[in-house]
Amino acid sequence: MNMDKWLNSVYSDGTGEFVSSPLPSPRDNVTVRLRIIEGAPVERVFIRSLHNGLQSFTEMRPGEIIHGLRYYEAPVHINEDRVQYHFCIAASDTTYYYTQMGITTYVPDHTYDFVLLSNYVQPEWVKSAVFYQIFPERFCNGDRSNDVVTGEYYVGGYPALHREWDDKVLDYEHGRCMDFYGGDLQGIRRKLPYLKKLGVTALYLNPIFAGPSVHKYDCVDYFHVDPHFGGDEALAELTRAAHEQGIRVILDISINHTGSDHRWFNKDGVFFPKTVGAYNDPGSPERSFYYFGEGNSYHGWYGNAHMPTLNYNSQKLRDDVYRAQDSVLRKWLKPPYNIDGWRFDVADTFARHDDTQLAHTLWPEIRRAIREENPQAYILAEDWGDCAQYLQGGEWDSPMNYFGCARVIREFLGQRDLFLHPLLRSKRKMTGEDVKARVMQHFAKLPWVIQENQFNLVDSHDVPRLHNDPAMDMRARRAALIFQFILPGAASIYYGDEADIGGTTDTNEGCRWPMPWDKDIEGTDTYRLYHMMCVLKASHRALREGGMKFLLADGSVFAIARFTREEAFVAVISNSDDEETVALPLRDIGAKMPASGADIFESAVSFIPSDGGAILTIPPRASLLFNCPML
Amino acid sequence: MNMDKWLNSVYSDGTGEFVSSPLPSPRDNVTVRLRIIEGAPVERVFIRSLHNGLQSFTEMRPGEIIHGLRYYEAPVHINEDRVQYHFCIAASDTTYYYTQMGITTYVPDHTYDFVLLSNYVQPEWVKSAVFYQIFPERFCNGDRSNDVVTGEYYVGGYPALHREWDDKVLDYEHGRCMDFYGGDLQGIRRKLPYLKKLGVTALYLNPIFAGPSVHKYDCVDYFHVDPHFGGDEALAELTRAAHEQGIRVILDISINHTGSDHRWFNKDGVFFPKTVGAYNDPGSPERSFYYFGEGNSYHGWYGNAHMPTLNYNSQKLRDDVYRAQDSVLRKWLKPPYNIDGWRFDVADTFARHDDTQLAHTLWPEIRRAIREENPQAYILAEDWGDCAQYLQGGEWDSPMNYFGCARVIREFLGQRDLFLHPLLRSKRKMTGEDVKARVMQHFAKLPWVIQENQFNLVDSHDVPRLHNDPAMDMRARRAALIFQFILPGAASIYYGDEADIGGTTDTNEGCRWPMPWDKDIEGTDTYRLYHMMCVLKASHRALREGGMKFLLADGSVFAIARFTREEAFVAVISNSDDEETVALPLRDIGAKMPASGADIFESAVSFIPSDGGAILTIPPRASLLFNCPML
Repeated sequence: MNMDKWLNSVYSDGTGEFVSSPLPSPRDNVTVRLRIIEGAPVERVFIRSLHNGLQSFTEMRPGEIIHGLRYYEAPVHINEDRVQYHFCIAASDTTYYYTQMGITTYVPDHTYDFVLLSNYVQPEWVKSAVFYQIFPERFCNGDRSNDVVTGEYYVGGYPALHREWDDKVLDYEHGRCMDFYGGDLQGIRRKLPYLKKLGVTALYLNPIFAGPSVHKYDCVDYFHVDPHFGGDEALAELTRAAHEQGIRVILDISINHTGSDHRWFNKDGVFFPKTVGAYNDPGSPERSFYYFGEGNSYHGWYGNAHMPTLNYNSQKLRDDVYRAQDSVLRKWLKPPYNIDGWRFDVADTFARHDDTQLAHTLWPEIRRAIREENPQAYILAEDWGDCAQYLQGGEWDSPMNYFGCARVIREFLGQRDLFLHPLLRSKRKMTGEDVKARVMQHFAKLPWVIQENQFNLVDSHDVPRLHNDPAMDMRARRAALIFQFILPGAASIYYGDEADIGGTTDTNEGCRWPMPWDKDIEGTDTYRLYHMMCVLKASHRALREGGMKFLLADGSVFAIARFTREEAFVAVISNSDDEETVALPLRDIGAKMPASGADIFESAVSFIPSDGGAILTIPPRASLLFNCPML
Repeated sequence: MNMDKWLNSVYSDGTGEFVSSPLPSPRDNVTVRLRIIEGAPVERVFIRSLHNGLQSFTEMRPGEIIHGLRYYEAPVHINEDRVQYHFCIAASDTTYYYTQMGITTYVPDHTYDFVLLSNYVQPEWVKSAVFYQIFPERFCNGDRSNDVVTGEYYVGGYPALHREWDDKVLDYEHGRCMDFYGGDLQGIRRKLPYLKKLGVTALYLNPIFAGPSVHKYDCVDYFHVDPHFGGDEALAELTRAAHEQGIRVILDISINHTGSDHRWFNKDGVFFPKTVGAYNDPGSPERSFYYFGEGNSYHGWYGNAHMPTLNYNSQKLRDDVYRAQDSVLRKWLKPPYNIDGWRFDVADTFARHDDTQLAHTLWPEIRRAIREENPQAYILAEDWGDCAQYLQGGEWDSPMNYFGCARVIREFLGQRDLFLHPLLRSKRKMTGEDVKARVMQHFAKLPWVIQENQFNLVDSHDVPRLHNDPAMDMRARRAALIFQFILPGAASIYYGDEADIGGTTDTNEGCRWPMPWDKDIEGTDTYRLYHMMCVLKASHRALREGGMKFLLADGSVFAIARFTREEAFVAVISNSDDEETVALPLRDIGAKMPASGADIFESAVSFIPSDGGAILTIPPRASLLFNCPML
C-alpha cells in the first residue's frame, strides 16, 4: 500500500460511531474509536488525552473491520467538564499524529484536539434542522388592519432610522414610507403549510419587537411585539401553530444597543413622554444602562447616534435583560410564547466597550438564564469572523456561520469575500485547498457536539443574495446549497431564495424584497432543488448525524463526505471552467460509487472504478452530490 | 521577481522596530510596521485589527526602504487590554494574509494574530537573561557544618521519599543516605564569581525549603529554608550577594502538593507533634487544605501517598499561600530575601482535580499577588506541553520551554521526544519543516512580549543530560546550545553542562551528579562554547531584543535568524550525515554573508553569493552561527 495514501483514511469524530457516549456525564468511561484502512502499515495506536492538565497515553486495541476499515478503541475517563485528546499512530516509518485538523508528522499543539464535553446540554434538534430565515415586514401580509399607514412611522428623525448601517443607499427623498410592505406574524402563520411542505423545520425571524423601522433593530420596547406585526398575541399564536406542525421558532434581538427612542433612552420623546428615560432624566434608573459622557453625549453602536450602546456595568440592566424572571430574554422563552432560542445581533461586540470587557463574563450567565427557561433553546450569535473562543460549550451554540460556510463557498464560486475590505480580493480562483483550510479552521477548533450546532448559511438579510449575482448560474447556486447542507449543523434558507426572489443592493429594498407570492413558486426548478435538499436531510441520518471529512481538496475541485455506517453522501464541487478528472478516494470512508454513476440530481457522471475508489470526469463548474453505498 | 520568493521577506513582529510602543498604555496610538522586499509585486497593504470584537481595516502607507526592504506603516489604536491584528497584502496575483505563523492564501483565523497588550508589565530583564539552573544539594558544599549526618533524614518512611517520580531506579538496599552530597546555599554564594565569569545573569534554584529528600519537592515547611542548605539567613545572604553582582535569583516551589510530613499534613509525626496537622487532627484548620475521603484516605499527586494534593477550594489555603502579607509566596519576595521570581513545579495540574478546576481563577490572583511584591518578578511554570492559554499576559510569563525548545531540538538531533510514550518515536529523521512547525505552534500563539519571556532550555533536573547520550557529539551539543540561545527569551544552562558533568539515568544520581569542581572546567572546549554564547547574548542586542524568523526549513536543514536593524545572527543546523548545499535567503532580512564565510566558531564555510543571499555548502550535522552584516 502506498505509504502516504493510507493516511487519508485515518478518521475519528464525536459521533456515536466513534465515541460510545457523545454527551457523557461526569465520571463516565467513554470508549473512543479511530479507524484506519485495513492493510495500512500501522504497528500501534495510542490515544493521548489530557486530564487535570496532565497527559495520559492509552494504547488502542485493534477491533472489528467494517467496510475495509479497521477500528481501534480505548477507554477515556471523563474526569472533568472538558476532556481533550488526539491520536498517535506508530507506523512502520514513523509516528503520525491525528487531530481534528488532520495528520501531522510532528507532535501537535492542543488547538485542534478532539474534545468531549460533560455536563453539556446540546440543543439536539439543531443538527437536523432546516431553518428558514424571515424578514417579517417583507414575507406575507396576513392582516391588512395592522399595516403601517402612510406617514405613521414617518415622524421626527425617522428617515435617519431607515438608513441601513452597511453601504446600501436608500431613497429618502420621496418622503414616503415607501419601504413598508405590510408583512406580519399572521402572514407567517398563514404560510406555515407552505414552509412545512418545503421541508422547513425551524424559523428564524428578524426582529419583531416594537420599532419604527422596517428592520426593527432600532427597538423601542423589548417587551412588546410591534403592533404592525400583530402584537404579542400574534407571536403566541404563531409559535403555537408552528409547534403543532413540528416547526421551531427563534427570534432576533440586539441586546447590544437599543434605538434612541427606546423606552429606556427616549431621546426625542416620540413614543414615550419626554420627561422619562435615560436621555431626558439623568436621575432615571435607566441612566446607568448607557454610556453617557460630557454634556449628555453618549456612545452609539458603531458611532450611530440613533442606536445607543447598552452598558452592562449596570447590574439593573443585567436584571432587566436576562436575570429577572420577567426579564426580556426570559419573557419570550416562557408561555404563551415559548420560543425555541435567540439570535443575538452584533454579538461579537456585545458588552465590549474599551475599558468594559464583559463578554466572557456575561455570555455564560446569559446562557444559564436561557437554559433555565428552556434546556433545548438555541443560542445563535452574529459573528462573521473567527469566534471559536465563544464556542466551547459555555457561551454560544453557533455564530451565523459566515466564517466557515457563506464566506468560503461564495469566494470559491468567484465572489469577493463578504467581510473583507472592498479593495481586497482574490484575483486568481480560490482553490479547494483554501476551502478545506477555511472550513476546518472553523470546525476543527470546536468540540464535535458544537460543530453539530453550526448555523450554516449562504444568504441573509445582511448580504446580497447569491442568485441575483449575474455571475452565479444554477450550477453555482446548487454548489452553495449542497455545501451548506453537507456541513455539520443546520442549514438556513433565507426567505425567497427558493422562489428566485428579486432584489439587488442597488434597489431600496436590497436583499429584502417582498416575497413573490403571486408567482408559481412550487413549479420552478429552484424550488424543487431546495425541496430536494430538505427532503434529503430529513430522510437520511448521514446528513443529520453523520461524520464529515474532506475527501479531496485539489486545485479547482474539492469533495466533502458525510457518512454513517450505512451510507455516505459525497459532494463534489468544481470552480473550473473546464472538464476535470479527479480521483475520489471513496475507499477511505468504506464507500463506493453508485452503480449508475448518477448523482442525486440525476447527472450521470463518467467514472472508472479504481483501487482507491473512482476516477471521475466531472463537467465544468460541477456541483454534484452522490449518495454512495458502502463497500 | 519570482512570484513566490518575495513572500518569504514579509515580516513584522512586536519589537520596537515594528511597533512604536511594544508595551503600550491604554488609549495609545501605536504605529505598526510591516516590511516586504522592495520590488515585490505589492499593490496595497492593509492591517486588519480587532477592537471590541469588531474588525477594522487600515491601509498601510509605504514608507522608507532599509537594507532593500520597504516598510509599510499604519496606526493602531489601543482601546483595550488586548488588541490583535494581522496583515492583508494585495499583490498583483491575489491577496495574501500574514500572521505570526506566516503567509496564507486564505482569510486566516485569529489563532496566530499579532497581539499588543496594554496594562501589561513585562519582566524586562528576562529576555536578556542567561539562567543557570542549580540542583542545590549537588552544586557546592560551602558549609560542612550543616551537612546531613548519616541516618539523619533516614527516618520513618524516608527511603520512599527518595524515590523519583519518573522512571529512574534508585538503589535503596544499602540503607544509607548515599545520595546526600552536602550542597548548600553557602556553596552557591561561594561560586558566584565562577557563574559571573561564565556569563550567567540569573539563577534558578531547585527547591530549598525544608524537606527530607535531596530534591525537597516533599516539602515539610514552606516558610523555612532547609537547615542543611543553610537556613533562611543563607538565602538572604545569597540573594544579596547575587544582586550585588547583577545576578537575579528565582526559587522553585510546588504549591500543588506538600510532602506528607509537611507541617500542614504531618501524617507520620516525624517533624511535628503527632497531635497536629490535617491527617491526625480532623478538626485542624489545615484539614480543608487537602482532599480527604472515606476513612482518612486522601488524594496524592499522581497517586503518590507521600505528596498529598492541596485543595484550593479552601479560602484559608489561598490566604496562606499567596493572599496574606505573610503568605508563602510573598514572604520570599520581600526583604531580606528579595527573590526575583518563582518557578512553579507541576503548574500544569495546579488547582485542577476533577470537579475542582480553579487554574484560570487562581493563576491571575497569584500573578497579581506576586507582582504587588515585585513588579518585575518572573513567573515560570512547569508545563511540558502546549500551554498557550496560560501565556496571554494574565497568568504565566513562561513555561519550562520543553514544548517549543528542548523537545524539538533533541528530537531533531535524533533523540526520542522527551514527553511521548516510550513506544512512540520518529524512525525517520525529523525534518526542518517539522522543527519550524513545532517551534512556531508554540511561539506564534503568544503576544510578542510573552515570546520574549520564554525560558528556553535543553537540560534540566527532569531529563537525561543531552551530552551524556553517546549519540550526541559536540556538533549536536553546539546545535542545541545555539538553538536555545537564538530563540526569543532567556536561555537556561543546567549546572554542570558547561563542565561535561557525568551522570546517566542508570546511576543513582541520574542527571543530578555533584559538580566536578576538582576538574579544570574553564580550560575545556565545552566551557569556552558556553561562555561564548553567554558573551554573545550579553554583547549583541540582536540576541536579546531582535526579531526572529525561520529563514529556511527544508529536509535535513533549518535556519533561524535573529536580527535588529544593525546586524543579524543566523543559525544553520543540519541533521544530515552528508554535506548539504542550501540557499540561505539572507536578502529577505536585509543581510548578507560575512565576507570571510566564517561563523562565530570560526568554521569557514564555502559559499557563493547569490541574488537572494548565498548558496552554502555545509558539513554533515552542521551547527553554525553566522553574525551577518546588513546589506
